[in-house]
Amino acid sequence: MSMIEANLKDLGVTLADAPAPAANYVPFVQVGDLVFVSGQISQNKDGLITGKIGADMTVEDGAAAARTCAIALLSQVKAACDGDLDRLVRVVKLTGFVNSTPDFTDQPKVINGCSDFLVEALGDMGRHSRSAVSAGALPLNVAVEIEGIFQIK
Amino acid sequence: MSMIEANLKDLGVTLADAPAPAANYVPFVQVGDLVFVSGQISQNKDGLITGKIGADMTVEDGAAAARTCAIALLSQVKAACDGDLDRLVRVVKLTGFVNSTPDFTDQPKVINGCSDFLVEALGDMGRHSRSAVSAGALPLNVAVEIEGIFQIK
Amino acid sequence: MSMIEANLKDLGVTLADAPAPAANYVPFVQVGDLVFVSGQISQNKDGLITGKIGADMTVEDGAAAARTCAIALLSQVKAACDGDLDRLVRVVKLTGFVNSTPDFTDQPKVINGCSDFLVEALGDMGRHSRSAVSAGALPLNVAVEIEGIFQIK
Repeated sequence: MSMIEANLKDLGVTLADAPAPAANYVPFVQVGDLVFVSGQISQNKDGLITGKIGADMTVEDGAAAARTCAIALLSQVKAACDGDLDRLVRVVKLTGFVNSTPDFTDQPKVINGCSDFLVEALGDMGRHSRSAVSAGALPLNVAVEIEGIFQIK
Repeated sequence: MSMIEANLKDLGVTLADAPAPAANYVPFVQVGDLVFVSGQISQNKDGLITGKIGADMTVEDGAAAARTCAIALLSQVKAACDGDLDRLVRVVKLTGFVNSTPDFTDQPKVINGCSDFLVEALGDMGRHSRSAVSAGALPLNVAVEIEGIFQIK
Repeated sequence: MSMIEANLKDLGVTLADAPAPAANYVPFVQVGDLVFVSGQISQNKDGLITGKIGADMTVEDGAAAARTCAIALLSQVKAACDGDLDRLVRVVKLTGFVNSTPDFTDQPKVINGCSDFLVEALGDMGRHSRSAVSAGALPLNVAVEIEGIFQIK
């Protein structure tokens, strides 16, 4: 078991097999040492996490949803690494889209649910540049969608 | 004629000359083998394709609009390749912004209009990572704006 | 003083020290010669520049806000260059998010406040690819948030 996965296990997280592509796009593309991962939507074993923050979800709900995006991103990176997450060098960049009302202003606290988990799981290599914005709406009414760029070896 | 352009011809598509920059930004910038293409807005020979999906446009209208963004992206990549599209190695990443109402949830079906065209035109090298989200609004009220990262040789 | 900073001084702009990270993300991450800079929000010495364009702010207000994002981006790039901005090779890509009403359609004119400043300050190396879209809402109700990718040596 990779050191990172051992750490994830301590955090109570098991990475699922990366979901198969649902269309003519793929979960990730690698160019050189960069892996571009498709936007991951908030979901857990019970299904999609849906709702609009500021209306029917709180900031805390949103942060919990963003955490599931982090886990989905790591699952994709594991697949990109042929199953060996210890090939991960750095989380480079995240773009976090929050499904919110037009007057919501705590996007960073929502996306922190993803950022905090990545640093908890990966340590310093989990620290990343990012943007956190609201989208007007998101696919299937999910609460959060987060895409990422990762460096692997 | 490049193999890709022969394929585009079979699909009834001719790439227009890439539009000139309208401001202090440019249609694309290349760094190493990566080409970053500016957001391309939905338009065809009749002009801009405008409207808000969920209000005055259907999902199908949106997908047709997204297809025009794909053609515009390829026109820019052709220019980045000095006219020889066979230098294209891979479509790496797309970010698709849909002009929609706040309750619209079929962003992926809209952006599929772009993704499906790229795979139809390019085959496996057209498969890409992507994000599909709604924007609160888009320039000139266009229905769709899509930016892309491409690998060329 | 670097040539670029001398030029900035002529423009009446002094780069502040890059703000420290406020969470488990960082202002920038470098991979090879690419620097990915986190989304910079509109602010000046008087504090955050907040508001929704189309409601309580004009296009000109928005462009002035976008200009402050350009200055913040350059401050981060300077830090990435260990203080020597002359190591900057090229502004590669900007993504500009505008806090606007759903019927606002002049996102490009707002983000031009950033693009125009970068070309004014940097000349041709300031020309970049970009996308300009509205976000449904932005952190702390800022008017503009802009992220960037830069090439340095």
